[in-house]
Amino acid sequence: MYTVNLKKKILDANEEAAFKNSRLFHQYKIKCLNVISSPGSGKTTILSRTIEALKGKIKIGVVEGDLKTDLDTQKIKKTGAAAIQIETNGAGHLSAEQVYEALQNLPLAKLNLVFIENVGNLVCPSDFVLGEHGRVVVLSTAEGDDKPAKYPSTFAKADILLINKIDLLGNVDFDTSRVRADALKLNKNLKIFEISAKTAAGLQNWYDYLLGFVAG
Amino acid sequence: MYTVNLKKKILDANEEAAFKNSRLFHQYKIKCLNVISSPGSGKTTILSRTIEALKGKIKIGVVEGDLKTDLDTQKIKKTGAAAIQIETNGAGHLSAEQVYEALQNLPLAKLNLVFIENVGNLVCPSDFVLGEHGRVVVLSTAEGDDKPAKYPSTFAKADILLINKIDLLGNVDFDTSRVRADALKLNKNLKIFEISAKTAAGLQNWYDYLLGFVAG
Repeated sequence: MYTVNLKKKILDANEEAAFKNSRLFHQYKIKCLNVISSPGSGKTTILSRTIEALKGKIKIGVVEGDLKTDLDTQKIKKTGAAAIQIETNGAGHLSAEQVYEALQNLPLAKLNLVFIENVGNLVCPSDFVLGEHGRVVVLSTAEGDDKPAKYPSTFAKADILLINKIDLLGNVDFDTSRVRADALKLNKNLKIFEISAKTAAGLQNWYDYLLGFVAG
Repeated sequence: MYTVNLKKKILDANEEAAFKNSRLFHQYKIKCLNVISSPGSGKTTILSRTIEALKGKIKIGVVEGDLKTDLDTQKIKKTGAAAIQIETNGAGHLSAEQVYEALQNLPLAKLNLVFIENVGNLVCPSDFVLGEHGRVVVLSTAEGDDKPAKYPSTFAKADILLINKIDLLGNVDFDTSRVRADALKLNKNLKIFEISAKTAAGLQNWYDYLLGFVAG
C-alpha cells in the first residue's frame, strides 16, 4: 500500500523535473537520447566512437551516470566532448532532477545533441523519464539472445536497439533473428542496428540515423 | 525523508522474511547461495554445469528470479534438478518473502544446497538479504574490468566472485589482475575463481570449494 503511493510520489516528482529538462532542451534546440543497458554492454565505447565520427557535423555533450567513479566521463572527455558525471551513490538509475543539475554544467548553447548514459542496469532506468526525445537500448551479443523476453519493459519503451559486439558472434551463442523477433513483438516501431563499437562494423547506419534525428 | 523511512520499512520487512528462510534452511540442513550478476553473465549456464558435475555428491535445488518468463527454470530442469521460477513482474531484485513462498515448492528434505539465481541486475539485489549463507557474484569478461570499481557495494558484500567467460579473453579487453585487485580492495576475504561455463575451464576448483562449503 504505502509502497505503491510512494512509488507514485517519486515518479510524479521525477516527471516534474523531466519537464524542466524538456523545456531546457527546447530552449537550446537540443535533442536528447537516454541510453540504457546492462553493465558492460559497451555504451561508453559507442558514445566515444560516435562523437569522434560526427565531429564537425553535430556537437555532442554527455551526461554520465554511475554508482561510483568518473571513469566513463574521463573516457568521453578524451574525445574532446563536454561530459559531466553523476555519481548515484547506490541508486540503480538516474533521476530527472540529477540530470537537471548536471545540465547546468554543460555548454548547452554550443550543443546539438545530449546523450544521457544511464547507470548500467537493464531494469530500473526504464521507469524514469528524464525529458529525453528518445531511448536507446544497447544489448551486447555476449549477454545472450533471451534478453528482450526476460526484460520486456525496457525494450518496449525504447526507440532504438543497438545490438553491439557483433564481432563476437562466432564466439558466443546469440541468435540475432530471435532478438529482432522478440523485440519487435514488444515494440513494432523499434529501430534496430547491428554494430560493433570495437571494429566499427555497422556504425555508419547508426550515424546516418542520428544525423536525421538531430535535424528532424 | 519519506524515501529513507520507506526504504527502511521495506528492508525491515525483508529481513523478517529472510530470518524465516534461514530457519527453514537450518531445519532442513541446507546451505544456500544467492547468485547475483548483470544480465547475461552466465549464471544459469554455471548452475546447470555445476548441478551436472556434482550429481551423486550433493543434491541441488534452484530458485530462479526473472522479471518475466520461466526460460531459466526450463534450462535448470533439463539437468533433472528441482527448480522453481519467481516472476517479479518488473522488480529488479528478489525479496525474501518471494523466496520463502518459492521454497515451499522445492523438495527441501531431499536437498543439500539451494542456489537462488537473482534477477540479472548488478545493483538492486545487493540491498536485499534472502536468508542465504553466502553470496556469489558472477562477472563475465565481456562486461569489462571496471565493474568492481563502478559497482562497489555488490562486490563488497559478496563471498565468492566467479569471473566467467574466460574463453573470450583473447577477444575482449579485460584485465583479470585489475578485477582481482579492485575486488580484493573492497573485500579482502573474497574468494575468486576464473572459469568458463562454456568450456568448463577452471570449474573443478569451484566444485571443490562448493563441496567443502556444503560439508562445512
